[in-house]
This record gives sequence, C-alpha cells and structure tokens, in this order.
Amino acid sequence: MSKNYYTHLECHECGTVYDKDSRHTFCPDDHQPLVAKYKLDNFWSKESLKDRPANMWRYKEVLPVEKEENRICLGEGFTPMLKLSKLGGKVGQGRLLLKDESANPTGSFKARGISMALSKAKELGVTAMCIPTAGNAGSALSAYCAKAGMEAHIFMPEKTPHVFQMDCEIMGAKVTKVDGDISDAAALMQKENDGSWFDVTTLKEPFRLEGKKTMGYEIAEQLRWELPDVVVYPTGGGTGLIGIWKAFQEMKDMGWIDKIPTRMVAVQGSGCDPVVQAFQKGMDHTPKYQNPAKTIANGLRVPKAFGDKLIMKTLYESKGTAVSITDEEMKEGLSEFATQEGVFLSPEGAAVWMGYKKLRSENWIKEDESVVLINTGSAYKYVENLY
Amino acid sequence: MSKNYYTHLECHECGTVYDKDSRHTFCPDDHQPLVAKYKLDNFWSKESLKDRPANMWRYKEVLPVEKEENRICLGEGFTPMLKLSKLGGKVGQGRLLLKDESANPTGSFKARGISMALSKAKELGVTAMCIPTAGNAGSALSAYCAKAGMEAHIFMPEKTPHVFQMDCEIMGAKVTKVDGDISDAAALMQKENDGSWFDVTTLKEPFRLEGKKTMGYEIAEQLRWELPDVVVYPTGGGTGLIGIWKAFQEMKDMGWIDKIPTRMVAVQGSGCDPVVQAFQKGMDHTPKYQNPAKTIANGLRVPKAFGDKLIMKTLYESKGTAVSITDEEMKEGLSEFATQEGVFLSPEGAAVWMGYKKLRSENWIKEDESVVLINTGSAYKYVENLY
Repeated sequence: MSKNYYTHLECHECGTVYDKDSRHTFCPDDHQPLVAKYKLDNFWSKESLKDRPANMWRYKEVLPVEKEENRICLGEGFTPMLKLSKLGGKVGQGRLLLKDESANPTGSFKARGISMALSKAKELGVTAMCIPTAGNAGSALSAYCAKAGMEAHIFMPEKTPHVFQMDCEIMGAKVTKVDGDISDAAALMQKENDGSWFDVTTLKEPFRLEGKKTMGYEIAEQLRWELPDVVVYPTGGGTGLIGIWKAFQEMKDMGWIDKIPTRMVAVQGSGCDPVVQAFQKGMDHTPKYQNPAKTIANGLRVPKAFGDKLIMKTLYESKGTAVSITDEEMKEGLSEFATQEGVFLSPEGAAVWMGYKKLRSENWIKEDESVVLINTGSAYKYVENLY
Repeated sequence: MSKNYYTHLECHECGTVYDKDSRHTFCPDDHQPLVAKYKLDNFWSKESLKDRPANMWRYKEVLPVEKEENRICLGEGFTPMLKLSKLGGKVGQGRLLLKDESANPTGSFKARGISMALSKAKELGVTAMCIPTAGNAGSALSAYCAKAGMEAHIFMPEKTPHVFQMDCEIMGAKVTKVDGDISDAAALMQKENDGSWFDVTTLKEPFRLEGKKTMGYEIAEQLRWELPDVVVYPTGGGTGLIGIWKAFQEMKDMGWIDKIPTRMVAVQGSGCDPVVQAFQKGMDHTPKYQNPAKTIANGLRVPKAFGDKLIMKTLYESKGTAVSITDEEMKEGLSEFATQEGVFLSPEGAAVWMGYKKLRSENWIKEDESVVLINTGSAYKYVENLY
C-alpha cells in the first residue's frame, strides 16, 4: 500500500463531511458536488516525482485511490506540452503552449476522470456503471469498464458521431441512443436505472474531478513549477477547469508553489454558452440553456452543468473570463492551427485557440504573459462532423 | 549544443562509409539502406535519463540530430507500456505487455521516424519532402512538415481510408491518390519528382530508422533494463522491427544491458506476406509479392520492403519467426482485445495479438517468457475499414 493522504469528501457548498470508506455521489441536501480533501501539510516532496511512471498516477499521494492493485490503468495522463512557436510569433505571444490531451487512451482527456472514478469504484466494490455522454466520456467508460471487468451502460444523443457508438460497442458496453441532447440522455438513463448501476455523471460522482485535476499538476511540473498566467479551457461539464484550479490550490497548500498567478478562461460554443451568459451577468450559477444548437463540438453541448457553481467560482476566484466561439470560427481555427503547428485539433480545441485569439486581440491577454491552451481530444473521432 | 555521439552512415551490405554532414539516401552501389553509427563506448549513463522529458528525445546522445533547435517535436514517443493481465491469464502468460503506439502524434508510431527524418533534414537544409504511404506515414509527414514549415508531397493508394487524405490536406500537404498499392504510389511519385523533393520513403532515407529505434530504448527502460524474451511486431516496411533490434545492440555496446534474450517476430497479413514466405524458405531477401489482396490492415500491404534484407537478418539473428494472419482473424482479435483489455487496437495491432496467440498455442512462446506486443496505431483512423 502506497502512501496516500486522502481523508474525506466535503460538500463544496454547505461543508458537510462524508467519510472516505463509503460510496457517495453528491450532497443530497443542496444537490451540489462533493470534493475530495487531503492532508496537505508539507509532507511530500516534488523531488520524488523523478522516478515515477509517465502517467497521472505519479501524483498518487494526492489521489483518492488507496491501494495500487485497484488502479485501472491504460496509460492515461502525462500528455505532451507543446511550444507553439509559429502561432506564438504570429500573434505576439512569447510563451504560448498547448497541452495535447489527444494522446490519452480513447483519444481524450476523459480517460483521466474515468480511470480515477472506476479505480475508486473498484476499491469500494462497485461492479456496474452508467453515464450520459456527448461521446468521449462514453468511449472512456467503455474502455475502462472492459479493463476492470465491469458493466458499462452508455446513453448518448443520436447525433453523436457514429465512431463513438462503435467505440463503446466494441468494448462490450451497452449503448442506448437518445433523441435529444445530453440532458435528455441523462433523463432517460435515470429512468432506466433501477439503482444497480453506479452513476458516473460529471460531478455527480466525486472522483472524476480528481482524475482531471492531474492536468493541473502536469502543467505545473512540465513548466518547472512556474504556473502560467492564463489557462484556456473548453468548458462543457467543466470538470477540467475546476480540477486544474483545485490542483493549483493543493500545490500551494503543500508549498510546491509560492503563488497562483493564473487566470482561468472558459470557452464555449455560441450555440450553447450558459457559462458565458452567466459570467456576463455576474451570476453564481448558470440557468439551463434553452434549445442548444447543433455543433461540431459535441463536448460543448451541455445546457446545464451539474458543477455550474464551481465553474463560476473558479472563473471569479481566478479573475478569469468566458468567451463564445461559433462553429465557423472553430473550422477556421482548426485549419489555421493544423497548417501552422501540425496539430489536428478537436473542434473543442479549435474553440480554445479562437477564444484565446479573441482575448489576445482585446489585450485581455498581454504579450509577455505565458498561456496554456488545452486540446481536450483527438480530431479523428470527429471526422463525421467535419466533412 | 547537446552532447551527441553520431559519427557517420554506413551501408549495411557493403560497409561503405558516408559522412554525416551531407545529405544521403541509400547506397547507390548495391541499392541498400544506410545505417547510422555512433561512438558507443561506455560514456553515457542511463541514470541521466531520470530528469528528461517523456518523449523520444530523451535518448538524444544516440540520435543523429546534433542541434536541439532543429528538433521538430510534437510530443512523439515514450508511449505507455500496458500490463495485459486479463488476456495474459487467459492464455497462460504471466508477463504479457502491450506497447501502445496509438498515443503518438497523428495516432501512430510513424510519428517517431518522421519527426527524426525531418529534424535531420532541417539540419541539412532540406525544405521539401515527398513520400508514398499506406496512410499513417502520410499523416505524420504532413503534420511535421506543417510544424517545420516544409512542403509535403503525399502519394497514397486511392483505397486508403478517407480520414488519411483529410488529415494530410488539413495540414496543408499536397495529396495525390493513386490507383494501385503503395508500390504504384511510389512509382508515380518518382516520376513526378524532378529532384527538388527529398524522398523519405521507408529506409531509402536513413533517419526514420533512428526515430523508430527509440521504441527499443523505451521497451528496455520501461522494463527496467530487462529485455523481453519476445517482441511481436506488425511488419510492412519493417523499420520498427529493424530499429528495435538495432537499439538492443546499441544498448549492449554501451554496457546498459548484459545480454539480448529477445526473439523478434514479424506478423503480416495473409494476403501480402512476403516476409513470412521468405522466412519459410530461409531466404535472405523477399521477392516482390504479386497481387497483394485488399486488407483492413493498410499498413501491412507492402509487397516489397526496401529493407527486406535487414528484416530477414533481424529475424535470423534474433532466432525469431514470422506468421501470417487473415483479415477475419484480425477482426476477431480486435473484438477480443477490446472487450478484455479496453484497448481498441488498429488492425495491425490485432494481427500482432493473433500472431502471438498462434505462437503461444504452438508453444513457440513458453508460459514463463516475457512478451511485448506492439500496437502501431490508433483504431480511430480505420473506422471506414471496419464497418
């Protein structure tokens, strides 16, 4: 058993504490996410990372899985951080970087959260999982359930590109296609679940956040513990945005970094941008977005994130902002990025690039600042959307 | 300038030496590949790897690129090594591992070779490249040329899945589709090249091999310098097979490992298996395979590899073998692997899995041996072939 400093879960809203040895979902009192807490005294030296494997489990002390034998690992995490020297030169940004999450198993950042959630579920004795998904979370859940020997029940909008369904089915998952968006998929799933499936919906389950936060640890480690001035993130369910911010706080609490200069930016699609609208009004939550438009960026079509309050809190606390991007802009960004930097971004990644450019042109991002863009997934799964 | 021990190129057949500062292709005398040589006295400690980035450039001392500024890097290499505990249990193999190359940029192992070839080409002043490709090498060349600001001219069989063409075009490459197989594509390319394009055809260019060999270094490092008893590799052009074997020899010369127990296995598709046929006859080269059948494993449809002699030599020297797999078997293997281990293999990777199983069932691979299977690419680019 490796050293581990996970202590308990806590409702981010009311502070109620939940013990670490039982299964929990979200806080039943105020219907808000639970957040994992650790003993973060200055006990653990970042020097010890040197000998560790190049995946997200290198940060095991601040992850909730207590026994190594429970890890369901397909090689998730420690993805490349690329210098965007050509585009940086073009827009006047000396330190412009891309964290390329397409290198993860099943081709997206979802692998991190799902790997963590399933590993912890295994530790707590769960054997069947269900999820509503815009695509990539379903792929990841199917793959990790196959590896773990668990059942996977996937509910996805029927407009999801066909490859996602194939991906789930070849892994042996049960796939249900739903006429509607991800909220409709979630509603049908809840109806069909008799209680025997463990629901790993974004932030209704506490540990996907712990997987996603490893992006924050990696950003810090890959930048030699100098955090960037800006992180630009494509925000659907928002777990990564919240997770990166959580990781930064934890590292500060452990004394690994002195200060957090980072402003967190949420990028959304203009056909479904509840976070952008709420941010403009200074709200602490997001009303449900009505009639979300079809988009090439499936992962951004989330009318109401369960973690909306945590998303808004992250943006305000970090002095960040939120911007919307159209599908046309995403296509333009995809092409520009590919021809200049040799990376075929996912539509969500292209939205991030275009969102960044907007903020740069308004000088909200300054020339001498360091910026990390996040590409959340592989473009190859979106081919059907693009041509 | 980082330390570097690259000294010269040498024809593997006649031993003619070529200087390191000029552009070379292959040996004009006997029409055979050139191989890069290094000063391999025991100068460099493997302990120094600990602090290095998680990509193939961590082995910079034994790579041909002399100046760091010439590296064209998209995060290639240091891919995951996964334990196949479920399938291993099923077939009775305690130490069964998968090196998953799908995590590379543009979704395949081709990224390694192309990154190295282009970086060295940049160092030698080249500005335009051409290649005949079954798909993934074209994707990789397009991406790295975009990053490097070089021209890419791609020639691919028209039966190549559409995603590969799109991938090349979005990166700004010029794509020509050819009625026929990869040999026909190569013929047309040679006709159209007026000499201004540098030809990076497999092993007609010496440095893709140096990129591919990093798989061998990684296998050793990830297994803590205990080489496996068997490596099973899907063999089209064969660069990886030759490269892994070359890396093992270099590490032995440097004193990093004591012995090389590894038997190298080539897996081919039954509709185009020149290596298997030559091996059965004990030949030192492969005659051109006539009328190669269509297959879901595009990367294996190579009727005559330019490095055929090196492939055969690797198999004989390592006491390895060669096996053929049908498309039906690949599909069966894909499904079995996905449901058991949560990895959606490329068809080439599925061929490896099935080839391994054949050798295991014949007891050519023993229960107590350690085995590394290579999955060369992402399944998501082959969706068109599969359904």
